[in-house]
Amino acid sequence: MRMSRLFSKTLREAPNGADSKGYEYLLRAGFIRQLGAGIFSLLPFGFNATKKIEQIIRQEMNAIGGQEILMPLVNPADIWKETGRYYSIDKEMSRFSDRVGRDMVLAMTHEEAVTDLARGEIDSYKRLPLLVYQIQTKWRDDPRPRAGLIRVREFTMKDSYSFDVDQEGLDAQYAAHYKAYFRIFSRCGLPVIVVGADSGMMGGKISHEYMYLSSIGEDTIITCPSCGYTANRQVATFAKTNYVEPMKQTQKVLTPECKTIDELAAFLKIEKRQTAKAVFMVGTFINDTNGEEQDKLIVGIVRGDLDVEENKLQNAARANALRPAHCEEILQKQMVPGYGSAIGCSKDVLVIVDDSVANSNNLVAGANEEGYHLLNTNFGRDYTGQVADIASAAAGYSCPECSKPLSSSKGVEVGNIFQLNTRYSESMNCSYQDEGGLRKPVIMGSYGIGVGRLLACLAENYSDEQGLSLPISVAPMQVHLVSLVKDAEIGEQIYNKLSDAGIEVLYDDRKESAGVKFADADLIGLPIRITLGNRSLKEGKVEVKLRRNLEESFSFELASVVEETKALIAKLEAELKGQIVEKEWKQA
Amino acid sequence: MRMSRLFSKTLREAPNGADSKGYEYLLRAGFIRQLGAGIFSLLPFGFNATKKIEQIIRQEMNAIGGQEILMPLVNPADIWKETGRYYSIDKEMSRFSDRVGRDMVLAMTHEEAVTDLARGEIDSYKRLPLLVYQIQTKWRDDPRPRAGLIRVREFTMKDSYSFDVDQEGLDAQYAAHYKAYFRIFSRCGLPVIVVGADSGMMGGKISHEYMYLSSIGEDTIITCPSCGYTANRQVATFAKTNYVEPMKQTQKVLTPECKTIDELAAFLKIEKRQTAKAVFMVGTFINDTNGEEQDKLIVGIVRGDLDVEENKLQNAARANALRPAHCEEILQKQMVPGYGSAIGCSKDVLVIVDDSVANSNNLVAGANEEGYHLLNTNFGRDYTGQVADIASAAAGYSCPECSKPLSSSKGVEVGNIFQLNTRYSESMNCSYQDEGGLRKPVIMGSYGIGVGRLLACLAENYSDEQGLSLPISVAPMQVHLVSLVKDAEIGEQIYNKLSDAGIEVLYDDRKESAGVKFADADLIGLPIRITLGNRSLKEGKVEVKLRRNLEESFSFELASVVEETKALIAKLEAELKGQIVEKEWKQA
Repeated sequence: MRMSRLFSKTLREAPNGADSKGYEYLLRAGFIRQLGAGIFSLLPFGFNATKKIEQIIRQEMNAIGGQEILMPLVNPADIWKETGRYYSIDKEMSRFSDRVGRDMVLAMTHEEAVTDLARGEIDSYKRLPLLVYQIQTKWRDDPRPRAGLIRVREFTMKDSYSFDVDQEGLDAQYAAHYKAYFRIFSRCGLPVIVVGADSGMMGGKISHEYMYLSSIGEDTIITCPSCGYTANRQVATFAKTNYVEPMKQTQKVLTPECKTIDELAAFLKIEKRQTAKAVFMVGTFINDTNGEEQDKLIVGIVRGDLDVEENKLQNAARANALRPAHCEEILQKQMVPGYGSAIGCSKDVLVIVDDSVANSNNLVAGANEEGYHLLNTNFGRDYTGQVADIASAAAGYSCPECSKPLSSSKGVEVGNIFQLNTRYSESMNCSYQDEGGLRKPVIMGSYGIGVGRLLACLAENYSDEQGLSLPISVAPMQVHLVSLVKDAEIGEQIYNKLSDAGIEVLYDDRKESAGVKFADADLIGLPIRITLGNRSLKEGKVEVKLRRNLEESFSFELASVVEETKALIAKLEAELKGQIVEKEWKQA
Repeated sequence: MRMSRLFSKTLREAPNGADSKGYEYLLRAGFIRQLGAGIFSLLPFGFNATKKIEQIIRQEMNAIGGQEILMPLVNPADIWKETGRYYSIDKEMSRFSDRVGRDMVLAMTHEEAVTDLARGEIDSYKRLPLLVYQIQTKWRDDPRPRAGLIRVREFTMKDSYSFDVDQEGLDAQYAAHYKAYFRIFSRCGLPVIVVGADSGMMGGKISHEYMYLSSIGEDTIITCPSCGYTANRQVATFAKTNYVEPMKQTQKVLTPECKTIDELAAFLKIEKRQTAKAVFMVGTFINDTNGEEQDKLIVGIVRGDLDVEENKLQNAARANALRPAHCEEILQKQMVPGYGSAIGCSKDVLVIVDDSVANSNNLVAGANEEGYHLLNTNFGRDYTGQVADIASAAAGYSCPECSKPLSSSKGVEVGNIFQLNTRYSESMNCSYQDEGGLRKPVIMGSYGIGVGRLLACLAENYSDEQGLSLPISVAPMQVHLVSLVKDAEIGEQIYNKLSDAGIEVLYDDRKESAGVKFADADLIGLPIRITLGNRSLKEGKVEVKLRRNLEESFSFELASVVEETKALIAKLEAELKGQIVEKEWKQA
């Protein structure tokens, strides 16, 4: 590829809205362009890098028995109504009517489509296990697209789906993915950790997320440096201290201006852990079969030294969505914001109590009367409700496995694996006949990797003050050939020689200054740079640098430039191969 | 790939709705499955075949300097409003509002998106010419999906876009595509002809379509067997005979029950060519800048021996859409259906007269009075209007170039190339600075190939009573290995040997009868079949057949099965290469 003929141009300045370094460089180097909020085009460099990532994914999916297929982006709504997700998924899924008025959706994932396929193909246990995957376009109307390809609305995803006769089969395919994903990310050069995760709208039980740790991430990951426990904060647990003591009698006390736990503890001169905190939310509950919505007030009670993890609260409540309650909504249910508790509230309120509260006694709680609290409230005696773990883990808390202090960090989710079990096969009647002739629902798993997001994380991870520096396995091309000599012929010769040998060369044949050419080479960041300068050419040599270390330069003999370049490429590739991560899934 | 592990199953019966042979076999052999009207999934065989077609397209596009990119399917409506196509394209384009109420469209083509990209990248004449392409998913809400992948709503298309400084540059890129398309189709093994075409909603001037001739086609192609003139009937011209004679005086005559030209000619004992036929249509005219629609009555006048070609009439009228007029609409404009003409009609009727009428005299036309016609009407004297070629060409008419009789046949459009000129660059302000510093609109071209439709045509062309028989360049795999022996080991050995040598093998390792295995092999139709039978194995041989000729069988030595198979594959590939069509565009 000649730079004089390249479709994309490089940009000297960071465009507006480039809210992360990786995004800025992908724009400036001409990898991607934005068409609208969360909607991007891939230009030649971005396209090439993406194809290389996809090829790595393809090889690893084929290696675990995956068969590649392609399912449509536009789905008839019928199949989404069958599983109920047409109703339970909110505005994130875009819908339209076709010309004859049929409901259509833009698929954000393909459990419905693949289950529809599978129920047509799978009849007997003899045909299982099966694994199919696709690398395909999806649309998700994200409310907050950001950071370029990190969070978009239209994106390319690898999604695979496994089909088995039993849990053992699913575990085997899950374990195969667990391992293959580490191979994929490490072959691309991306460091990731795996965390236990919430299955969210997928509806399965066991799931893991692959996280690239970075300050640009929006997920909070709780880890234990001592024993290796790792989970997304949405589901992370921790060892809670219980404070059990004999129950005392409840007593109403005046507590003016004590609307927060801090104010209350200071006023009463007690510790925060001696109080109970009430959080008021409204949950939306959607009927899976007809889409009817119902709102319900939920009060989450957690000990005053802890916080409510909304995701845990939503899961415990089995709500489709949660939002903070308005004052009037709380008052209507006989509770008083700032002085609220579940004591004396309407019977139709869903009370969910963290086990920290259930396992402590004599907590100070709101009296549901402006300016008053109750001393010595006790769950079970004074009020009831559903007990669950709804507290948010945080750095410094005790590890649930080894009790050592936990840490927290930010991460970007680049992959996820879910055990779906029969969530989709039951609602869509996808079954097989077992050896005894009985029909049983197929056991399914679902496994995703965001291709564009992976590129974005790589750009974030492999960049410096000058620009990108992607690993050779995913760089758009291997060699940047920079000619600084007036004689075009020598450049053409070397370009042709290298290209003819199958080496991917970006040849800067433009009539630009050395400064401009080097700045562009730094920005685009191909792994190997070969420079043609008068001085070295006189000695029959070309200057060579690795993008990752521009301080150091060496040289190749002009006569053996092809062989030496090939050897250097092989060396860089071997280096990456030496860093392939092999990790096995250990079932809890 | 082992058949025991294959995701898709074969079907013994043709499923409902399989309205063509190729479609039936693609379903039965497990290449594709339907998810909804005009919405299909590709199963492993269909996916593989499609990837091979795409790879051929990619190679030929790269060979003419194409740079591969990827643009989004979901487009913000803004860019479609800029060109006016948001308004001028009807229900074929699906639209929806995103979560914040912005108008979005599902792109059915990418002139808008690519012009938006190009105006950001192209600044100077120095950066031109450029050519970009993508192989990407599109959605077009076709009112009549049919014949499987022939006419669908979601489809994969290769679309390329050229950018030049002048017409000469555009001509060069157009010629390069013209030639590359013949190479692509012939490398896939599909026989096509190229025809002059209408540019329809694309809005350019010169365009060609590549047609696969077949009775399942919906396009009518007019060809001259003598000189090679070829065009889609929508735009085909022909040499019309003029009947010029001195004008006579108009005379009203009673013509009861003469509502058709046939009845009229018989009643008056004249030839049909001595009459003028009026066709009443309502055209929709859409304001490009605000989307306002206006309907207008159009009367097309053609000589009685000819028919009106609606596409020509629509182009002449510059209408966005046409439909037949209702009786009342015609009567309102002072014309009488069955006895109608442009004589005495309302001034706001758009009268379009075929040159056959303008160049003939003394035609019998409707008197716009029930039961009466006028003798000796003459265009120019008795009524006026816009003169254009709006007559439909047909078999037997005279060739416009050599006057010999024309033929007609049915075809499926598998590719098209358009000279867009400045249609999009002007409305979207995509310009370059020329050598003198002046800004000029970029000259564009647009070039498409329907990938799925191409596969569907291949399936149509390469099938017999037993099933498919795709050429080796596009077959999902190269070899079908059928084991009929009980000893699984020998099959495994050969399967592994062939696979390790890089040969694509479908290995029928199932416990099925020879009949079932051969029926499936016939249906799927991989080019080379290797059968393991007890008799030949005893002699140290395997039986080999080509799918295209199941009558003839030969054998390979077991010891050299890899080498002999490789040689046979190379022979089949060389055969196809020998049939590559090289055709140059000759500008009119």
